[in-house]
Amino acid sequence: MKPIALFILIFLEIPFASHSQSDSLVIRSIYDEALVHGEAYQNLHYLCKNIGARLSGSDASYKAVYWGENLMKSYNFDRVFLQEVMVPVWIRGNEKLEIENLGEVNVLALGGSVSTDGALEGEIIEVTKFEDTKAMDPDVFRDKIIFFNEAMDPRFISTFRAYGACSNQRYAGANRAGELGAKAALVRSLGLGKDSYPHTGSMGYREGVTKVPGAAIGTEDAFRLSQLLSKNKVNAVLSLDCESREDTTSFNVICEIKGSEYPEKIILVGGHLDSWDVGEGAHDDGAGVVQSLEVLRILKKLNIKPRHTIRCVWFMNEENGNRGGKEYARVAKEKNIEHVAAIETDRGGFSPRGFDYDGENEFILDQFQSWKALLEPYGLHQFRRGYSGVDIRPLRDDKIALFGLSPDSQRYFKYHHTAADVFEAVDERELQLGAASMASLVYLIDKYGFPQAIKD
Amino acid sequence: MKPIALFILIFLEIPFASHSQSDSLVIRSIYDEALVHGEAYQNLHYLCKNIGARLSGSDASYKAVYWGENLMKSYNFDRVFLQEVMVPVWIRGNEKLEIENLGEVNVLALGGSVSTDGALEGEIIEVTKFEDTKAMDPDVFRDKIIFFNEAMDPRFISTFRAYGACSNQRYAGANRAGELGAKAALVRSLGLGKDSYPHTGSMGYREGVTKVPGAAIGTEDAFRLSQLLSKNKVNAVLSLDCESREDTTSFNVICEIKGSEYPEKIILVGGHLDSWDVGEGAHDDGAGVVQSLEVLRILKKLNIKPRHTIRCVWFMNEENGNRGGKEYARVAKEKNIEHVAAIETDRGGFSPRGFDYDGENEFILDQFQSWKALLEPYGLHQFRRGYSGVDIRPLRDDKIALFGLSPDSQRYFKYHHTAADVFEAVDERELQLGAASMASLVYLIDKYGFPQAIKD
Repeated sequence: MKPIALFILIFLEIPFASHSQSDSLVIRSIYDEALVHGEAYQNLHYLCKNIGARLSGSDASYKAVYWGENLMKSYNFDRVFLQEVMVPVWIRGNEKLEIENLGEVNVLALGGSVSTDGALEGEIIEVTKFEDTKAMDPDVFRDKIIFFNEAMDPRFISTFRAYGACSNQRYAGANRAGELGAKAALVRSLGLGKDSYPHTGSMGYREGVTKVPGAAIGTEDAFRLSQLLSKNKVNAVLSLDCESREDTTSFNVICEIKGSEYPEKIILVGGHLDSWDVGEGAHDDGAGVVQSLEVLRILKKLNIKPRHTIRCVWFMNEENGNRGGKEYARVAKEKNIEHVAAIETDRGGFSPRGFDYDGENEFILDQFQSWKALLEPYGLHQFRRGYSGVDIRPLRDDKIALFGLSPDSQRYFKYHHTAADVFEAVDERELQLGAASMASLVYLIDKYGFPQAIKD
Repeated sequence: MKPIALFILIFLEIPFASHSQSDSLVIRSIYDEALVHGEAYQNLHYLCKNIGARLSGSDASYKAVYWGENLMKSYNFDRVFLQEVMVPVWIRGNEKLEIENLGEVNVLALGGSVSTDGALEGEIIEVTKFEDTKAMDPDVFRDKIIFFNEAMDPRFISTFRAYGACSNQRYAGANRAGELGAKAALVRSLGLGKDSYPHTGSMGYREGVTKVPGAAIGTEDAFRLSQLLSKNKVNAVLSLDCESREDTTSFNVICEIKGSEYPEKIILVGGHLDSWDVGEGAHDDGAGVVQSLEVLRILKKLNIKPRHTIRCVWFMNEENGNRGGKEYARVAKEKNIEHVAAIETDRGGFSPRGFDYDGENEFILDQFQSWKALLEPYGLHQFRRGYSGVDIRPLRDDKIALFGLSPDSQRYFKYHHTAADVFEAVDERELQLGAASMASLVYLIDKYGFPQAIKD
């Protein structure tokens, strides 16, 4: 059958080109349910206050897994299961940084860093751009502590762009320090604004490079340190007790509502259950976890019987390895499990602005954008190409429709990977609106699908 | 000259129908200035922390006036002046509420309430809708304390609509209580979410009605009280020492950059300098005050020479009388001062979403909406009809273009008129983006005007 004939056939069968008034009513009922009887906020409260920070392999991460499994069971969905995944184990331990003429400064080892093996002392050498180290004489850095002090550029309206533009200093700063014969890397935190909260986050070492420790300091302390360095030489003493241990078994936590027509085809909503080991992982990504579960709760509560199977996945280990996302995709491929679409929520529980479509398929993009009018009354206006999410990205192929929920990004990098990412930083209504937005998109995808996806 | 001919003439003279690339660049530079060198946040810090709450007629309100005048002078604008305005004076005094079986509960007298003249004791009678009192037998309320317990409806996406839908219980609850022979009115606070922060706000008495006191309790306490009342009779003892004094002189605080072509025509930006007497008036409306000043600072800093006079007005007494707004409009009319446009910012310092045009003029609406494409990259997507602001509303006629800055509204009613409305509740970038959005709209209005406004 030729695409054009099929197009007509689908058109007659499913009114995907003109959405009925009933869609407006269903979407209205989804938002009403989220705003009046929402459970995402109370679930987040439990996760943050009774479990808290939950780095992969930590006791709290298992507590979160079993809490999640039980919570999902309590909603009486059609299926709840755990998917095994091997995760790295990294433990922070004690840490301390003393800077000459500044005194003791808040410091956080970057995730994956080696320890300092006792106190490490050295002179600090500042670079304001990661790339600058390439052009400079390596002798300058030998046996020094390199201070990567690139600031996030406040001019980006999307703070994620500002983050992306300088995150290499965090991810690869210690590796570069090792390559240059330096003793350690100190990194200006990837945060906007000025405060003394260090932001942790993942870092890596390239094979063959001498592993030296990497740690972050707050933007305010980075500013003060830079001022000192503009006048004098400055020494520092850094102690990090962190260590990496053997990989261990953990779990993705999954529940689903079976599809009535296409039970073997999946529409996935998800976020990641693990968090960094500071704060409470409230915005990152407790919010996404409870929002994605809320999608299924709302559909069930409203008695919406999906045609496709709607699956909520709480991925493990997004923060320092993405093992959960990779394993999920590996199994899906191995078992030939078809995913029509996947929507990730991992940019904080802020007021939703829209979704990003992560793919090259014009049919999907057109269909997605045709839904804008239905969702605009709820403040969603961004229906564009963009990034979906770390966890679902391994599912990417030319058929699946990957989306990322796009909330307002202005406040995210005040909290991201810091001790300040706590329950109180999340607003109830903003969280609820995000969940309702995802549930609405799931409803539309389930009802209308994507012409091309149906064709295949 | 006929309108059609004039239209062509204007079209040749001013390229209002197609905006040049230079507009994009100017707008980009406006946002850059706000985000990189913005002073709104530091000014807000001063206003909140060194002056604080500043109800009309209070010592702090004068401190705010003179601080504002000096701050404006420090920017070397073309003109800074105070405009006298008579304002009401209301003083809170001590207050206490004890509810049987609940104990002492946080309470705030509503602004303008009479005192209780010592302790007032009575049985509480609940009504869940203000309007319900009309159909009920007045005898039910005689000598009782009426508890108006209508909740804000969480289903409204715009929280301002939820506010508007039940604000009569606050404004007119005590008046209704007086009409019904009740002793006092207790009002559930106009807040979303559940907490024990009472929200104050203005109330009024109709002439001839016996004045009885009105006070607010937090939503959580309202919930608990309602539960008690569903089982038993409940008495309460209320003491409010508040009093109204003679009107006194205060000031609108004004500065301007003179227009190069039309110095006699004004484009106004403004917010209100007064606040309620609890918290720090950070979102309401410290944010608006510093944002509107920031508009002029940005234009001057970027060396943008406006054709029209750009005036920043910090209105006095929006909260309990709107005397500043009314006096400003009265003087403008008396002196025949032409206002091309006025933009108010009084909905909190949250991420901007767009503007509301408050008028019936299709030319203005069309022109306004034609600018959407230029501002969408900055997250502005709402270019619609709506409300402008209390302070500038008295200027409304069929020529002036009135606009209200429309920020995301989800968090506003956590803080509005409460002790929680403090500096820390405002995000620096969200505040800056609002200021840049206003400056950009001012730039466009100044450059292109509105066809009809130019015609006149």
